[in-house]
Amino acid sequence: MNARLDLEYDGSAFAGWARQPGRRTVQGEVEQALAVAGRPAELTVAGRTDAGVHARGQVASHAGAPVAAARLNALLAPDVRVLASAAAPAGFDARRDARARTYRYRVLARDVASPFERGRALHWRGRLDRAVLDACAELVPGRHDFTAFTPSQTDHVRFERDVLRAEWTHEGEAVVALWIEADTFMRHMVRVLVGTMLEVAAGRRATDDFARLFEGRTRSEAGPTAPPWGLYLESVRY
Amino acid sequence: MNARLDLEYDGSAFAGWARQPGRRTVQGEVEQALAVAGRPAELTVAGRTDAGVHARGQVASHAGAPVAAARLNALLAPDVRVLASAAAPAGFDARRDARARTYRYRVLARDVASPFERGRALHWRGRLDRAVLDACAELVPGRHDFTAFTPSQTDHVRFERDVLRAEWTHEGEAVVALWIEADTFMRHMVRVLVGTMLEVAAGRRATDDFARLFEGRTRSEAGPTAPPWGLYLESVRY
Repeated sequence: MNARLDLEYDGSAFAGWARQPGRRTVQGEVEQALAVAGRPAELTVAGRTDAGVHARGQVASHAGAPVAAARLNALLAPDVRVLASAAAPAGFDARRDARARTYRYRVLARDVASPFERGRALHWRGRLDRAVLDACAELVPGRHDFTAFTPSQTDHVRFERDVLRAEWTHEGEAVVALWIEADTFMRHMVRVLVGTMLEVAAGRRATDDFARLFEGRTRSEAGPTAPPWGLYLESVRY
Repeated sequence: MNARLDLEYDGSAFAGWARQPGRRTVQGEVEQALAVAGRPAELTVAGRTDAGVHARGQVASHAGAPVAAARLNALLAPDVRVLASAAAPAGFDARRDARARTYRYRVLARDVASPFERGRALHWRGRLDRAVLDACAELVPGRHDFTAFTPSQTDHVRFERDVLRAEWTHEGEAVVALWIEADTFMRHMVRVLVGTMLEVAAGRRATDDFARLFEGRTRSEAGPTAPPWGLYLESVRY
């Protein structure tokens, strides 16, 4: 029997998902809660998130029977919550079985920062052309070589990804958010996409130049990596 | 010449608006920034908020010329921001001239708490009948005696208020929010209204009983005071 965990966490105070000795990580905290609950297990995760990255619909799996969500939540700090903990089909693997992941990247586009968006959105001052953001997003769906959008020093061996959706939406008056779904994502892929789109929307890079990056260009040709705190793993599709 | 300040703050780390010796307050911090900027002044405010209460559209005024918002923001901690600082008509007084205030009270209605709503919404587990909340809200607009909705030990001398709007709205999947506008509010008025409405929506109090509270009943007849961290001063109308 395997178990599936659905997790939500504020990444601000975590050194990312993956267990690391001496660091506070989401995997480390949840595995410790499982152990304290008498069910020691190693977690497999759908989307490994970096330090500062948030999750609203992370999915992890482990061998053995599930521990009740309420029991785990009583053992966990309030910046990570188990939304559901349930028995999964035999052999269920949160990473391998995932068909697609959806991320959201939030940008607060106004002059003054917001007390409520500290650590939760990139604060962008100055020009940001919404029509240009939309034009950029339209170029992303499809199968492309995303080499330009991940660090050049990499463990990835395959650089093509299938993007199923990429769309900027409005949230309230001043926040815009990129929703992007793909089969899998490479390290920093959403953040470099966003960092580069923002350059285009600020008038510092041509849309055509952005379009050419999907032909397997090098990392140095793309824009900066947007900071982690604007990024949310929203959901995983199985 | 007078100046008008539009302010946003996360109330979590403040002992409320009003200056108090030895406590960190919003008034204290903003007045200190004004003094450091070479424009010492005492602030008058549209809505005095209690400890933990947030503001997205607070308005304050002071004598003298305005200090640029960017200058003040450079002096302030990031949990309070000056959205605007501008010259106001001679004699402008943020409190006396305000015609109406709008507050919002946010409730996260789901079983599991959210890492992103800590200190930003009341977490409500269990039954919450949305139709009953709506029925309660419909009873609030109009001129009523709100004695039941403010502490019995009080400095208020007049207990009638004109409520212009009271309406529950949805925010995302699990948050409901009461929007309420009135000429002025008494201390704790929104929080006792919400605490009482939640009792009705949980099936622990009849709607008729809630209706009777607007006839000048005593505080002990109303429900509990909902916690401060769900409350936001949204805007002030002049």
